[in-house]
Order: sequence, then C-alpha cells, then structure tokens
Amino acid sequence: MAILAVGSIAFDTIKTPYGKKERVLGGSATHFSLAASFFTEVRVVGVVGSDFTAEHEAVMTTRGVRTEGIQRANGKTFHWSGEYGENLSEAKTHLTELNVFEEFKPRIPKEFLDSEVLFLANIDPVLQRGVREQMPKVKLVGGDTMNFWIGGKRKELGETLKGIDILLINDGEGKLLASDPSLPRAANKILTMGPKAVVIKHGEYGATLFFKEGAFGLESGHPFRAPALPIEEVFDPTGAGDSFAGGFMGYIASQPKITREVLKRAMFYGGVMGSFAVERFGTERIQVLTRDEIENRFQVFQELTRLE
Amino acid sequence: MAILAVGSIAFDTIKTPYGKKERVLGGSATHFSLAASFFTEVRVVGVVGSDFTAEHEAVMTTRGVRTEGIQRANGKTFHWSGEYGENLSEAKTHLTELNVFEEFKPRIPKEFLDSEVLFLANIDPVLQRGVREQMPKVKLVGGDTMNFWIGGKRKELGETLKGIDILLINDGEGKLLASDPSLPRAANKILTMGPKAVVIKHGEYGATLFFKEGAFGLESGHPFRAPALPIEEVFDPTGAGDSFAGGFMGYIASQPKITREVLKRAMFYGGVMGSFAVERFGTERIQVLTRDEIENRFQVFQELTRLE
Repeated sequence: MAILAVGSIAFDTIKTPYGKKERVLGGSATHFSLAASFFTEVRVVGVVGSDFTAEHEAVMTTRGVRTEGIQRANGKTFHWSGEYGENLSEAKTHLTELNVFEEFKPRIPKEFLDSEVLFLANIDPVLQRGVREQMPKVKLVGGDTMNFWIGGKRKELGETLKGIDILLINDGEGKLLASDPSLPRAANKILTMGPKAVVIKHGEYGATLFFKEGAFGLESGHPFRAPALPIEEVFDPTGAGDSFAGGFMGYIASQPKITREVLKRAMFYGGVMGSFAVERFGTERIQVLTRDEIENRFQVFQELTRLE
Repeated sequence: MAILAVGSIAFDTIKTPYGKKERVLGGSATHFSLAASFFTEVRVVGVVGSDFTAEHEAVMTTRGVRTEGIQRANGKTFHWSGEYGENLSEAKTHLTELNVFEEFKPRIPKEFLDSEVLFLANIDPVLQRGVREQMPKVKLVGGDTMNFWIGGKRKELGETLKGIDILLINDGEGKLLASDPSLPRAANKILTMGPKAVVIKHGEYGATLFFKEGAFGLESGHPFRAPALPIEEVFDPTGAGDSFAGGFMGYIASQPKITREVLKRAMFYGGVMGSFAVERFGTERIQVLTRDEIENRFQVFQELTRLE
C-alpha cells in the first residue's frame, strides 16, 4: 500500500558533540518519507521556499519518494537551528524560522488521493485534521504530535486524535497528553481518545506498543516492546523519531494485513531505521543506506532480546 | 550452586502514592536473598539489632534462606525512611539511622565458606573487598554499589571491582562510575575496571547486559537487552533492584554452566523478580510468590519482545 506523508520540510542547523552542520535537509515529512521509502511507495506533501533546490528534491526522488505534493511558496524554507548537549536526549533550540511553513495549507494532489495509508507528521493538529478529512477512504492513519500542540491546542488535538489509528509519541509527550506520570496508565488513557494503538518511544531504551483489545481484529491486548540498539556514538539524534515512524508505518504498509506479528516486526523496523538515522548528520546515513543493511541490523535487533 | 549474599538487613518506613508502611523488613541482602531463594540455596550474612524478631527471621527461613550468618549486635537494626513521588523512580530520604549497621564487620560462618557464588550487595566497598578475600575459591562474584560509594570511596571501589565478575548497577550509577554520559560507552569503560560483565538497570525500561569479548568463554561480545513489564500500579519500588539481582544471580547459580543463553534467561528472571517486588510493600509480594507465578510471568516477558 502507498503511504501519503504530510508534514514539515526544513533546513536544520545542528550542533552536537560531534560537530556542526549548516542547513542540512530535514523536517518531519522528509525523515519519515526517506525511512518509509525502503518498504513501500511514499508520497509526500509539504511546503518549501525558493532556497529548496533540485538537489534537495533529488534526495527524495532518488529514494523513489513522489514529490508532486511539495508546494512551492514565495520566501524561504522552514529553518530550525539547535544544539544537543552531552546526553543527546534533548535539543536546545537556538532559532525557529517558520518562513513559508507559517502559511502552510496542505493540498493533496488528485493522484495521491488513492493512498491507502496516511501519516500525519508533527504539524498543527488543525492542519492534520484537514488532511484527514480530504482522505475519507484511507485504510490506516498514523500520526505524531509534540508538547507544543498538546499544551497549546489540546482541544483541537483531541478532535484530530479521533481520526488517527496509531499515534506515535515519546515518553514526555505521552505523559503530558494523558496528564499521568505513569507511562502504562498514560498509554491506556490515550487509547480512550481515539487511537486504536499508541507507540510510546523511549529514546535509547526502545519503544512500547500498546493497543486496544480487539484493535485490528487482534485478540490479545498485551503490549509489545522493541529494544533500541546501544549506540556509543550518536552523531545527531535529529529525525530519529520520524525515521522510527517511517520504518514502522512503512513496514506495516508493505504487508497484506495487520497482524500481531506484523505490528511487532514493524516496531523492530522502526528501531532499526532510528538507529541508522543517528549515525550521521541529517539524512546523510539514510541516503546511502541499503535494504541489506536494514535486514542485517534487524537480525542484530532480534539477537539483542531473543531467547532460544 | 549455593549463593552467599552479604549486605544490609533493614527496616524501611516507606511512603508511596499508594500508602505508607512503618518498619517493614527490607535491606539489600534481604530483598536479594528472598528473590534468589526461588532458584538455588541462599546463605545470608548481615547484622541486626535486638528489634529483629524471630518473626522477621522466619520470613527468610520460610523461603529456605540460611540465616546462621546473621550477626546480632547490641542496639537497633538499620532503619531507613523515605518517600516516593508520583514518578516512583527516585526516593526522597527522610531518615537514615545506621544503628548497628554502622559497625558491621561481615564474618562468614565456616559452613558458608564452600559457597560457589558470592553476591556483594550494596555496602561499603572496603567491606565488600574484605568478604571477597575471605572467599578465595568462589567461582562467580556478583556485586552492586551506589552513588554514595562511587562519589565518596572511588579508589576503594576501584580495588573492589577487580574482584567482581558481574556488576549490577543502574543508569545513573553507571554513568557516574565511568564519568561518561553515554551508557554504552560507560558500560564498556566499566568492563576495563575488572568486571567481565556489567548489567545496567534502566528501571521501567528494562536492563542491558554488556560483556567482554571472551568473558565466560563466550565468543560474541554483543550486548543483550531484557524488557521490563509495563506496570500501571507500582506500589513500592523499594528493593526492585535487589530483587532483579536475586533473580539474575539465582538463575545463573542454578545452571551447570554460564552460556550466552543462561545470561539472557537470567536477565529475564531478574526482570520478572523485580516486577513482582514492586507489586506490594517491602517483601510482601515475594513472601507469597510461587515458582509457577514466576514461570508464567517469564512467558509474559518473552511474549513482550519475541518475534515468531
């Protein structure tokens, strides 16, 4: 099944203990689409300015991502600048220049309307809902959000969540959204807000999938945990979460049916894609990645937790 | 193989969001021994005061723990009082009354000297080393420590680590000991300090075992991760780490040989015992636990991460 991804396309200026890079290609839709492109056809919708060149677009088209949905606007592309300290778990933002992204109104090209899977990357929940409503026949909707929207547009986000099947968020966002300091309780509260499943990402500790009894026709409501790879040298964590989402949704979209086993494997592929994303700056690592490397690392992930 | 456990025996006054309990039986040696007792013979060495009654001792002897090594001293038993807030990950200490524990000099009873496995629970590293030297023929030594000793007795701890085969510590302790904010790097640094293997406990996220290439005759040096159970109601986290260590060391001691598979299963049994420990206050849950319940939960842990 083809995935339609809607989100931000950006330039990131990133400083980490391993160096600094100016204006590398980034954004939630970019990282998601590149990661998902290893598993299925991906179509992207976003907005860029006149500084977005053919070379930037080629990063996506080289991976087979369909870019007809990238809207061109007068002005500059969204630019984020930030820095990661020694622990690499949280970025300190230096600068957020929304530029053309401030007026982003996602328009779905006609030829993308038959996409069977939709991923609403982290943008204003009102825009997410607008996209969802343009895609009434979609079979599966994944979504992301962040503290900024949970705090600032809680009510609108609540409406949007009713149209999302699988929500992917991190620990802090999950606790904030559910107003509960216990992750398992928070996850179960979120499952009453609309999503049938929620993936809580724990950064270097992996991720947990919680799902409703009966969701996707599955009997057992037990959660499922996937590990993360212990990585000594995390060069740049930017985009790790979006790459996880890309691997997760991409693998699901590549399968004929959602089963418990498919969801489990999707969690592992999510972890695998996140682990590659952090090995170099921006999209550098994913651009040169091969499917063989993905399968090899999938085996390493399995070996990390498998009992004979 | 029989395990000799040396550590603290205490009374804990614990407040959590679920209630408050006064002077319940606790201490690192107590929690460790009870958890390990489901897997192998356990012998305990510690010190208590006159307030430690036959009833308290029966908690251990009922589980088959051999208590001849419990030293009786004039005065009161070590008493700790603390409180856990909503997140339950860190205790706020209200009171630490060392009492008879302040002058604790571990003496190993003659009949315990043939113990093949030794566990040095969290006490002064100088005392740990003294015990280690009394047991020259021991086949496997596990150990624990805490920030207090890492900060205050780093040099002495360094000497003690040379006699420990497997160190079990949590994230914060590992980073502090290695002076490195990256957990995988910290673990690998610790493996240059003496231990052949280090188990880093991540609380609600599980634990990771790192080991030296060639340790225990194992070829592969890849780490191994075990999940923790997502638990909605953590009644009391006190003793969870010691119970993890008890399950981990107890399972290893029950096996004829250390293999990669034994270490992996030990990690799961550690997680299982930790997950039971937090279900009620103090030792309450472990006291009524059955081996069948342990095996059932082991299956749940496997199901959490297993791919078909």
